[in-house]
Amino acid sequence: MPSIDLNCDMGESFGAYTIGCDKEILDLITSANIACGFHAGDPAVMRKTVRMALEKGIGIGAHPGLPDLAGFGRRNMQISAQEAYDMTVYQIGALAAFAKAEGGTIQHVKPHGALYNMAAKDRELAQAIAKAVYDVDPEIILFGLAGSELVKAGTKTGLKTASEVFADRTYQRDGSLTPRREPGALIENRETAADQVIRMIKEGSVTSVQGEDVRVQADTICIHGDGQQALVFAKFIRQSLEHEGIKIEKISNFL
Amino acid sequence: MPSIDLNCDMGESFGAYTIGCDKEILDLITSANIACGFHAGDPAVMRKTVRMALEKGIGIGAHPGLPDLAGFGRRNMQISAQEAYDMTVYQIGALAAFAKAEGGTIQHVKPHGALYNMAAKDRELAQAIAKAVYDVDPEIILFGLAGSELVKAGTKTGLKTASEVFADRTYQRDGSLTPRREPGALIENRETAADQVIRMIKEGSVTSVQGEDVRVQADTICIHGDGQQALVFAKFIRQSLEHEGIKIEKISNFL
Amino acid sequence: MPSIDLNCDMGESFGAYTIGCDKEILDLITSANIACGFHAGDPAVMRKTVRMALEKGIGIGAHPGLPDLAGFGRRNMQISAQEAYDMTVYQIGALAAFAKAEGGTIQHVKPHGALYNMAAKDRELAQAIAKAVYDVDPEIILFGLAGSELVKAGTKTGLKTASEVFADRTYQRDGSLTPRREPGALIENRETAADQVIRMIKEGSVTSVQGEDVRVQADTICIHGDGQQALVFAKFIRQSLEHEGIKIEKISNFL
Amino acid sequence: MPSIDLNCDMGESFGAYTIGCDKEILDLITSANIACGFHAGDPAVMRKTVRMALEKGIGIGAHPGLPDLAGFGRRNMQISAQEAYDMTVYQIGALAAFAKAEGGTIQHVKPHGALYNMAAKDRELAQAIAKAVYDVDPEIILFGLAGSELVKAGTKTGLKTASEVFADRTYQRDGSLTPRREPGALIENRETAADQVIRMIKEGSVTSVQGEDVRVQADTICIHGDGQQALVFAKFIRQSLEHEGIKIEKISNFL
Repeated sequence: MPSIDLNCDMGESFGAYTIGCDKEILDLITSANIACGFHAGDPAVMRKTVRMALEKGIGIGAHPGLPDLAGFGRRNMQISAQEAYDMTVYQIGALAAFAKAEGGTIQHVKPHGALYNMAAKDRELAQAIAKAVYDVDPEIILFGLAGSELVKAGTKTGLKTASEVFADRTYQRDGSLTPRREPGALIENRETAADQVIRMIKEGSVTSVQGEDVRVQADTICIHGDGQQALVFAKFIRQSLEHEGIKIEKISNFL
Repeated sequence: MPSIDLNCDMGESFGAYTIGCDKEILDLITSANIACGFHAGDPAVMRKTVRMALEKGIGIGAHPGLPDLAGFGRRNMQISAQEAYDMTVYQIGALAAFAKAEGGTIQHVKPHGALYNMAAKDRELAQAIAKAVYDVDPEIILFGLAGSELVKAGTKTGLKTASEVFADRTYQRDGSLTPRREPGALIENRETAADQVIRMIKEGSVTSVQGEDVRVQADTICIHGDGQQALVFAKFIRQSLEHEGIKIEKISNFL
Repeated sequence: MPSIDLNCDMGESFGAYTIGCDKEILDLITSANIACGFHAGDPAVMRKTVRMALEKGIGIGAHPGLPDLAGFGRRNMQISAQEAYDMTVYQIGALAAFAKAEGGTIQHVKPHGALYNMAAKDRELAQAIAKAVYDVDPEIILFGLAGSELVKAGTKTGLKTASEVFADRTYQRDGSLTPRREPGALIENRETAADQVIRMIKEGSVTSVQGEDVRVQADTICIHGDGQQALVFAKFIRQSLEHEGIKIEKISNFL
Repeated sequence: MPSIDLNCDMGESFGAYTIGCDKEILDLITSANIACGFHAGDPAVMRKTVRMALEKGIGIGAHPGLPDLAGFGRRNMQISAQEAYDMTVYQIGALAAFAKAEGGTIQHVKPHGALYNMAAKDRELAQAIAKAVYDVDPEIILFGLAGSELVKAGTKTGLKTASEVFADRTYQRDGSLTPRREPGALIENRETAADQVIRMIKEGSVTSVQGEDVRVQADTICIHGDGQQALVFAKFIRQSLEHEGIKIEKISNFL
């Protein structure tokens, strides 16, 4: 039976500001992408989130982002490959220290927001990020959009990579996600969403909005934890996977 | 013959802003305190500074500071012990990642500016910082003002500690430094400065401004690198020590 | 019949982070202290908050804070009087531009958090802040803790001042607030709280925790808007005041 | 005889970091673009720079930039038009308060770096910035690249605009600047540079790198003040203009 990892962004609170349902979502996922203080998160939040994740046996991941707290790391910035390398090394290191202090290690790295999106298409950025991960620790697993430059760069660099798929997003015939601003980008029906990921896991393919089947590698599913509705959606996806006999476990257990 | 370590703050440039004479000072010192992005420094500067230090065989140190770039980490902030712990873990981790990526490791940690001064007197802060260092890596050497709460906390926590002394500052009868705002706080005559550190190294004592001798442990001397005058002063101190037969080497070689 | 102003901190959201019940609280208060981007708030939040306040006829106030978003401006920082002056001018100006763009003006300035507390006791800081307000616009009303150095400095500088009192805090015999960390600092019973402010408004005095009456000037009451409980509390205070025939109106109407 | 304004970026120091030759350049220029704390500058630097400029009778300009101190505002960010509006209002206001406190007013606004470049081409951003200026004070003059969307938006919005030209940059046949990364982008020979601006002022045209003449409006020349070489270059340009009988005065005197 196939295995799948469920990952979710967390540790995005900052100072007096609270965001996300970290505690609740930890019971549903297997890998946590923890913000590292650039786009969200702060040292106290990082420590607490690492501890909570370790207590639940969740895989700990660094979630490096652009230095844009005001924009939550969602605004593209014209950074150089060297800058991407440097900010990735820095943020992984910061989280790794909390992991070490709490008795754990970093399982994976998943870039956040605009950095993730830019690295999906920009080969040079992708290679810089992959090299940053490798230089800090070649055992770390690199998460990237299935079929993206980031996954290719990770493999080329010598890292293990995890191809990420989405339950709630539609796909284009080239395997890319339909941009959010376009109609039909989101899958709001949860049965449709569950069916999509089950097929991606079992058959390795997805039906694009153009109607054609596209090959896609599914190692980990992106789960959202921002609000009660997201939690209900996540729970349904998880149960549907279990019902199909798909084993849900952290990526380092089966990759 | 006794040995002594010479340490200097560096890597304090930020973005388009350049500060310090890092390249020149590296030929005079044995341990580098590298800013970690809170009070000064940025990921690119950290990478370059670590590389330069490693090429010269200089001991690499994390130089964590308060989150106050505008104030260069020199303004006291009423942080909790937990906040001190968290920001220290974070900053050590960030620098450790660059050290790892460049093929080195962290030799020591020296808090910066107001954090250093507060930790010299505040036992709770000192213990939090010492615990942060220990939790990240118990092999790291903790630098603190000779006789300070920070050095005591380091020892108590199980860390090796280095007692720092100053060539260009006068001492009070209780072993503390004369505050900068008071007259006679600075020693501007370089012969007097050299004599003071030589005596601290050889005899373990210093003459206070009150005229009495005070016991002081001297493992490392604080060197300044901000400007041509500072470089000339540093060179003179170094030559005076060598002339006395004192061995100048990085702290991890002899502690 | 006496008049009273009700003020509340608002506009404290930042980027993706939402905090406070700004919309609901605007129906209960007469003066809004709007964060200016240093301890909380951002340009978009400032614009929206100014607009909402103007639509309701609420007095617009700048709420300058320490440059410490991570600490929400609540941690004391050892800033100089000149730094306090500069950061106050800057933040008032930023908010004044949004007031102008939305067709309004700034009614008052109330320092935030640690800056407010430090300026209550430190004469030099208080004078620097009062001078900053005066230099930007001598018509602006300065809010400070009743009896504080800040109120005195405002008067001395030539500003109109508003003495702030608290419904939910107890007072010491010297007229200062009981520090939050001490037992009995907070008044949780809403009838007691309402009675305290009604007496302060009508009789100009408050019973200290030591049991003695203390003279206190009450021009404006600090209202909290962080959560449903705070809203209920605020509503009760407002109704109690109205029931006593006290006129609730913005400070610029009656000072 | 024609008049011309000479403008230069200044007030770009930050905290302990010093950059630029502000004092020296003030004797050569007529309008100062003062950083407002987002890409560079801080409240203390703003106050000092405003004061120096007023003492010399230099026109004071707000120089709003992207919120990217680490990148000095030079990295493009995918901000919305609303975000551009908000950050422009905020920064103009902050500087206006210092101008008011020092007894002056804001003469002009010139966006900085990436914001300037993006606003030269992106109509929506340009209109948002022009509206921000107008909403704060419709008397302020908007500086933009000659022929740019920003100048057009300013005119359309009802602002007076100043078309900026460069002495040390070559032009394309469409009137745009040759991108810096391309060969031949910079004019290093100072006689050539002086000749180019003299002809732009007197004849309203410039020879493009393609060899054709292009119409260009020259109201103000961009001067650089970052280093001794820049100062010498600026002095030469100024003397060449004076030698041609071109009157050098601040833009508000003749626009």
